[in-house]
Amino acid sequence: MTRSALPLADLWQPIAGGVTAPRGFLAAGITAGLKPSGNPDLSLLLAPPGAVCAGTFTTSLVRAACVDLCAERLRASGGRARAVLTNSGQANACTGERGLADSLAATAALAGRLGLGAEEVLICSTGVIGVPIPMATLEAGLDPLVAALSEGGGDAAARAILTTDLIDKQIALEAHLGGRRVRLGGMAKGSGMIHPDMATMLGYLSCDAAVPAEVWQAMVRRAVQRSFNAITVDGDTSTNDTFLAFAAGEPLDPEHFEALEAGLTAVAQHLARAIARDGEGATCLLEVAVEGAAEEAGARAIARTVCGSALVKCAIHGRDPNWGRIVAAAGRAGVAFDPAAVALWLGEHQLMAAGQPLAFDRPAASAYLRACAAGAYLAGPGPAGDTVQIRLVVGAGPGCATAWGCDLSDQYVRINADYTT
Amino acid sequence: MTRSALPLADLWQPIAGGVTAPRGFLAAGITAGLKPSGNPDLSLLLAPPGAVCAGTFTTSLVRAACVDLCAERLRASGGRARAVLTNSGQANACTGERGLADSLAATAALAGRLGLGAEEVLICSTGVIGVPIPMATLEAGLDPLVAALSEGGGDAAARAILTTDLIDKQIALEAHLGGRRVRLGGMAKGSGMIHPDMATMLGYLSCDAAVPAEVWQAMVRRAVQRSFNAITVDGDTSTNDTFLAFAAGEPLDPEHFEALEAGLTAVAQHLARAIARDGEGATCLLEVAVEGAAEEAGARAIARTVCGSALVKCAIHGRDPNWGRIVAAAGRAGVAFDPAAVALWLGEHQLMAAGQPLAFDRPAASAYLRACAAGAYLAGPGPAGDTVQIRLVVGAGPGCATAWGCDLSDQYVRINADYTT
Repeated sequence: MTRSALPLADLWQPIAGGVTAPRGFLAAGITAGLKPSGNPDLSLLLAPPGAVCAGTFTTSLVRAACVDLCAERLRASGGRARAVLTNSGQANACTGERGLADSLAATAALAGRLGLGAEEVLICSTGVIGVPIPMATLEAGLDPLVAALSEGGGDAAARAILTTDLIDKQIALEAHLGGRRVRLGGMAKGSGMIHPDMATMLGYLSCDAAVPAEVWQAMVRRAVQRSFNAITVDGDTSTNDTFLAFAAGEPLDPEHFEALEAGLTAVAQHLARAIARDGEGATCLLEVAVEGAAEEAGARAIARTVCGSALVKCAIHGRDPNWGRIVAAAGRAGVAFDPAAVALWLGEHQLMAAGQPLAFDRPAASAYLRACAAGAYLAGPGPAGDTVQIRLVVGAGPGCATAWGCDLSDQYVRINADYTT
Repeated sequence: MTRSALPLADLWQPIAGGVTAPRGFLAAGITAGLKPSGNPDLSLLLAPPGAVCAGTFTTSLVRAACVDLCAERLRASGGRARAVLTNSGQANACTGERGLADSLAATAALAGRLGLGAEEVLICSTGVIGVPIPMATLEAGLDPLVAALSEGGGDAAARAILTTDLIDKQIALEAHLGGRRVRLGGMAKGSGMIHPDMATMLGYLSCDAAVPAEVWQAMVRRAVQRSFNAITVDGDTSTNDTFLAFAAGEPLDPEHFEALEAGLTAVAQHLARAIARDGEGATCLLEVAVEGAAEEAGARAIARTVCGSALVKCAIHGRDPNWGRIVAAAGRAGVAFDPAAVALWLGEHQLMAAGQPLAFDRPAASAYLRACAAGAYLAGPGPAGDTVQIRLVVGAGPGCATAWGCDLSDQYVRINADYTT
């Protein structure tokens, strides 16, 4: 099973920590009382002076006020920001003029406490659509939140952005580039739509090397394509999806940009896979690698269509090596390829060659699927890990890409049907 | 609740019968032994001499040999055909060169028995992907099939095209156009993907008025857009989807073409709704009417995205008036509209106006959803019918369209996960 190539990724080694692993970044997470559950619900990430920030946002036409605010501030500043506040519990989407006023007020109030201009502060919200933020509760939380900022605050920050995720999602990587140590940190939340209306995917990345804003933005855009934009849990795009990547520190020599992008992509892919693995009701991660397409974008479209097929997801859940569904999903991806060139593998089992079915050991293929996950996600990976690997070759072109998803269980339906009734 | 306008549809009245209600059409359905279940599995529709035939086919790149054969024969003849044979049990998709050879042999063998040229005979297959047709069994069935052809054979033909549908799907309409009686008949099969790999949607229409081939093709294309292309059960497009519409008889005066198209569209919409209602595990039909878009195509894209949203489908299944999911799905449909102009109704309950949530009677809205279907599909409609109606206004444009789907139940997952294991 080959993954899409990620050159130079080997330079990067995992280290402890999340967004505060890079030098100069501070973070905090506290319980302000926004969530009825009493779980942490207010999170802050503070980047060093001079930080550039690249953001990518939901493509939904219906988007929350905080998304509009982030996009507009990054546009106006040419990609500079110092801090991002995250409140979890209320998405502040479909809340009309009040939604924007609340986002402005929250960032202004925080900026005053940090000695920053309001335009240097961003805000992300996640939670129930249509419900405004209890502003008095949020504002009362700002002093303790700022007081809690620390170099070890990444853990607390990562926990406070969660809504109904089963676990927090963090990573940090380190590389030696031109004799200096460069660190990347990341955190994310999102578990598909495990909780109705709490669909948002939020991701944050920190980097302690300085990169020109336009270079950084291009790197981040490509990394997001290869990570967050390559996962699907249920095909529903949130009103609030946001990824913000900060870079600040000593300038990095351009000869290391390619290596930095490899690390950036690795961090983003780790977080994206963690979101897919934590998909609602999921019992395994699904990884679909497509090779041989004319272009990378086409390969990704095919991979994502297979990952998102309800029938493929049900088959994986039933541990059924149902290859017809995989190739049928590929066929409707809207990407040209020669059906007579298709080859397909499930783990080590080849199921198709030259567009036609092969005789294969069906019990062994089923056993592979069963071994990929012994049970529910939190029970841990099975004897063959937690990832079902599908490899689909669609021709001899140079385009390859990988997408990630999860299986579709009856538990998913129950979770999403039984929320308010 | 307004439906998308269908002018002149009132001219058409339901009559008994299906594809053999129009004059001159014969049909038959028998058990040839292609299905292990012993259910009818071989179906034939024979149109009068001079019939024109318009076909629309799956957009999947991976399509069965029979689809290639139908498309090529209709192209070569300029839209003329006399008969269509349907075998159910084996889809004859992903079967390589043998698949095409079998399709050619089956149509040639049938043509000989009907006194037609092989190029006048079409074939549709539905069933398991990757499995070839047992040709000896099929050929042994052709004599009894032809012997069974009759003017009342529509019922038997409609039953023999089914795979795992719970019920057969037929309709006939009649109108008086310019002093003469014109009849339309239709039959279809498909229940989403209730049975793994038996995904195919097949539809057939007969009309006893003659229309020039190119006019007929254009009418059929538009009717399919407004019916079969406006339903979604699980988003998976089959390798075999086919709709064939035959017209033969006295030429119709062009002044009645618009009225004929209205009837054609009504037949196609009836069959399409019947397929959605018979969706796997469905407990209700979901009808989403979108108004105020710039164009009809955009309205349809929004309506179909809402119908296809896993989260909307789960909410409907849970009888949860979860409006946030509806507007979030509309926002990701890829169609431009002004979120501040959105208004939303669930049945008679208005949930949004001017892009913002309204206070509404949540228990009453839940009660509406519960009343729309008392239980499983076969238990019959509930006190409020079997159709959950969503109306979404996205602006002041002229584009409106309706799409149909069904709810997503844990039963769907169990059906699709437990097939072979």
